[in-house]
Amino acid sequence: MPSYRGKTTEPTVNHSPKSIKKTKYRHVFPTHSQSRMSCLTHGAPTPSFVGFRNLMILVLVFSNLRLMIENFRKYGVLICLSCHDYSRRDVVYGLALYLSIPCQLFIAYLIELVAAQQAKSALARMKRAGEEHNTPEKQAAARRSFKKIWTIVAFFHGANATFNLWICSYFVYYYIHHPGIGTLCELHAVVVWLKACSYAFTNRDLRHALLHPDQSEPLPEIYASYPYPRNISFSNLCYFWWAPTLVYQPAYPRTDRIRWGYVAMRALEVFVLSIAVWIASAQYAAPLLQNSLDKMASLDFVSIVERVMKLSTVSLFCWLCGFFALFQSSLNGLAEIMRFADREFYAEWWNVSSVREYWTSWNKPVTNFMRRHIYSPLVGRGMPPSLAQIVVFFISAVLHELLVGIPTHNILGVAFIGMMFQIPLIVFTDMLKKVKGIRGDVAGNMIFWISFCLVGQPLGALLYFFAWHAKYGSVSKQFPESPALHLIGR
Amino acid sequence: MPSYRGKTTEPTVNHSPKSIKKTKYRHVFPTHSQSRMSCLTHGAPTPSFVGFRNLMILVLVFSNLRLMIENFRKYGVLICLSCHDYSRRDVVYGLALYLSIPCQLFIAYLIELVAAQQAKSALARMKRAGEEHNTPEKQAAARRSFKKIWTIVAFFHGANATFNLWICSYFVYYYIHHPGIGTLCELHAVVVWLKACSYAFTNRDLRHALLHPDQSEPLPEIYASYPYPRNISFSNLCYFWWAPTLVYQPAYPRTDRIRWGYVAMRALEVFVLSIAVWIASAQYAAPLLQNSLDKMASLDFVSIVERVMKLSTVSLFCWLCGFFALFQSSLNGLAEIMRFADREFYAEWWNVSSVREYWTSWNKPVTNFMRRHIYSPLVGRGMPPSLAQIVVFFISAVLHELLVGIPTHNILGVAFIGMMFQIPLIVFTDMLKKVKGIRGDVAGNMIFWISFCLVGQPLGALLYFFAWHAKYGSVSKQFPESPALHLIGR
Repeated sequence: MPSYRGKTTEPTVNHSPKSIKKTKYRHVFPTHSQSRMSCLTHGAPTPSFVGFRNLMILVLVFSNLRLMIENFRKYGVLICLSCHDYSRRDVVYGLALYLSIPCQLFIAYLIELVAAQQAKSALARMKRAGEEHNTPEKQAAARRSFKKIWTIVAFFHGANATFNLWICSYFVYYYIHHPGIGTLCELHAVVVWLKACSYAFTNRDLRHALLHPDQSEPLPEIYASYPYPRNISFSNLCYFWWAPTLVYQPAYPRTDRIRWGYVAMRALEVFVLSIAVWIASAQYAAPLLQNSLDKMASLDFVSIVERVMKLSTVSLFCWLCGFFALFQSSLNGLAEIMRFADREFYAEWWNVSSVREYWTSWNKPVTNFMRRHIYSPLVGRGMPPSLAQIVVFFISAVLHELLVGIPTHNILGVAFIGMMFQIPLIVFTDMLKKVKGIRGDVAGNMIFWISFCLVGQPLGALLYFFAWHAKYGSVSKQFPESPALHLIGR
Repeated sequence: MPSYRGKTTEPTVNHSPKSIKKTKYRHVFPTHSQSRMSCLTHGAPTPSFVGFRNLMILVLVFSNLRLMIENFRKYGVLICLSCHDYSRRDVVYGLALYLSIPCQLFIAYLIELVAAQQAKSALARMKRAGEEHNTPEKQAAARRSFKKIWTIVAFFHGANATFNLWICSYFVYYYIHHPGIGTLCELHAVVVWLKACSYAFTNRDLRHALLHPDQSEPLPEIYASYPYPRNISFSNLCYFWWAPTLVYQPAYPRTDRIRWGYVAMRALEVFVLSIAVWIASAQYAAPLLQNSLDKMASLDFVSIVERVMKLSTVSLFCWLCGFFALFQSSLNGLAEIMRFADREFYAEWWNVSSVREYWTSWNKPVTNFMRRHIYSPLVGRGMPPSLAQIVVFFISAVLHELLVGIPTHNILGVAFIGMMFQIPLIVFTDMLKKVKGIRGDVAGNMIFWISFCLVGQPLGALLYFFAWHAKYGSVSKQFPESPALHLIGR
């Protein structure tokens, strides 16, 4: 009689019609025939909780959809193409800067051309002088001569790069009112500045390797196709100019061909994500920031906390979209066009278990630059690694402050302090990993998300927005006169 | 020179001081030496996204903390011990019902005692008549006699059980105003009613097995210690009365001893979870329900949707806490006291991939009852399984409506319809599993969560709350006169 001898774990209603014989049924089936534990009891085999992951996704979607309804009923549609208040002057200056910034690369190229010429003639001189200068005096003299020339080359490179970064920052700070245009210009300037530095440093060491070859330290094989000084060419420089990297190499791993369909898909992604970020900022972040102005002014602490918490969802959304648009879509698209094969622009930073890992994995181009041209040289020269790390964070903090403070015309130091604050946080999350009893990896990951995405970014945005309003009033025509007052009805 | 030949995947700042020789460093380290894909690119090995799970937890905590701040600033503290408006009469009637409901079990016991007596004398008669009645005529006569007696026994059982359920429902509907006290009484009545039914059905078949033994269908081994009619004893009935099951068996798997520490922990869980549910309802659900009254009255559809969405988080929280308190803490605690060893009170219902699985896994006591005493007998008698399933859902729907409609004094049919609506939903999620291209298990799980927890429960709560208010006004002293109007400021 299968009808009452079936397995008890089988669900009631799953009997297929064929498996049940039409026999007289008796109500004596032993439902409880063995000892079993409830699956949530401590000591039972841990059940899967994958359903709760789905539930979390749904609750997030639902609660944010609800907030969107609430937002719409309160503000209507705030998205408006013609409302943005940027002046003609901003656009003209922005375009001029955008076109002029790459000039420093060409100047760097000219400097390198002269240096390469000089190196070639020095090599020819050395060859003419006959045998290798194997006496210590001659070697020392050659080194002194190289050092003297490098000092001159470095001076010109330094003057060129610094002047360019300074001029861009100056124009953005004093002449470009609109923070968006300013940020684009400043970002471009910093990227080109880093490229120029890498170009100068790398060529210096290639020159050194040419003049003072050392068989025990051969150059990387990948450079063989462009031996110095053949790499000092305009086409080689232009490739580096557009390649999605901040680190100069005479040659890079390349792909065979450009898949234009792939490029089109990446471009579409960038477009869609930009629209999403724009809508999120205009419809959700803007009224929130406006609402918080009077709370900031009156230092109403609980309200500021509440505003930061509400802003955190929008800023997190914008950050994730922006990250994907820049590091996945744009850089992969650019890499495809440039046939640049090494596309590790980021690692799995969302799983990091310490803040330290985050800073070495979210932005590989900058990490690679910092590692090759700042951290490793400092450690190689004898500096303790922890101190070298602090130097890297200091430079990074200055660049962050440049990128945020200059376009918003408020060098508050918040971005700088935010970056420097990472150092004690790294020490803390490193210590946390060693504590027994808590799952250090999960705790570290949560500390990263809280400190960086849920508190750091929205708080920073709030502070710079407040400082901007204190100085200028609104950027948008939609909140013209007393920005904070007419919207705060709640 | 390890300083520039290190692996590129190693994070920059992770060099230990010992691994770096103090040699002259050169800026020619090949950062880009191989082709690599970005880990989010389609075709790359899928990375882990465990960090985003942590992020979701944090965002949920953050956004709900924010809503709690908002709620507090709007309403202050609504939790109030002395505000609940229940009358002395409700408590007296409730207690009287609570104590009188188990009487039907004792009446059922008396009926069984008589039936067992009758069976014993029939057996003795058969023994006296000498050989087994192996002629077909004698067998048929014995069967007819058994059937006749069962008809009488069934009539008394049916009258007893139905009368008790009816009397409880009557008093709850007409004399107990407070819905909480009413629900407790009605739930108790339904549980005891199910137990009495199971007791009658099981003993009928045990009696049948005694009078007409069939060697090919032996009774389950676990029953051997209490052969019929020895199981018809007062102590055996009392054990079934308190055992955490709705299915009668003469004997159950038992544990060796009671761990009182375990019982204390479960009691503590019930206490803490009850407080949590109480706070959630009083502080968060109550004003929400009040707020939605005028929107319900004016059929403002978008607002009702918004209210349901907001209510869904609170109702989900209460549901999960309530589930844990009842099915994990209470039933396990009770099972420990009763030394009841089979504690499969639920399966992993949160992971179900179809609504069908949910209904057979979230409430094992009821599932076991339905399977043993309704579904399997019907299928065993030749009913198609799908029809038997509909019958089970119909009975379940009636019981749900009883449990919700009677205590709220509004037999709206919403709980009934909600349960019956599960049938087309089961058909739909079953079909969904077979569709290629979508992950049927994830989609089915999400449909379950949406239909049941995110829409069904809050919508049902809203409808019964609205009907209650239309009939009586507020249950709480906190929202006395015009409940909807003075709180809806938003």
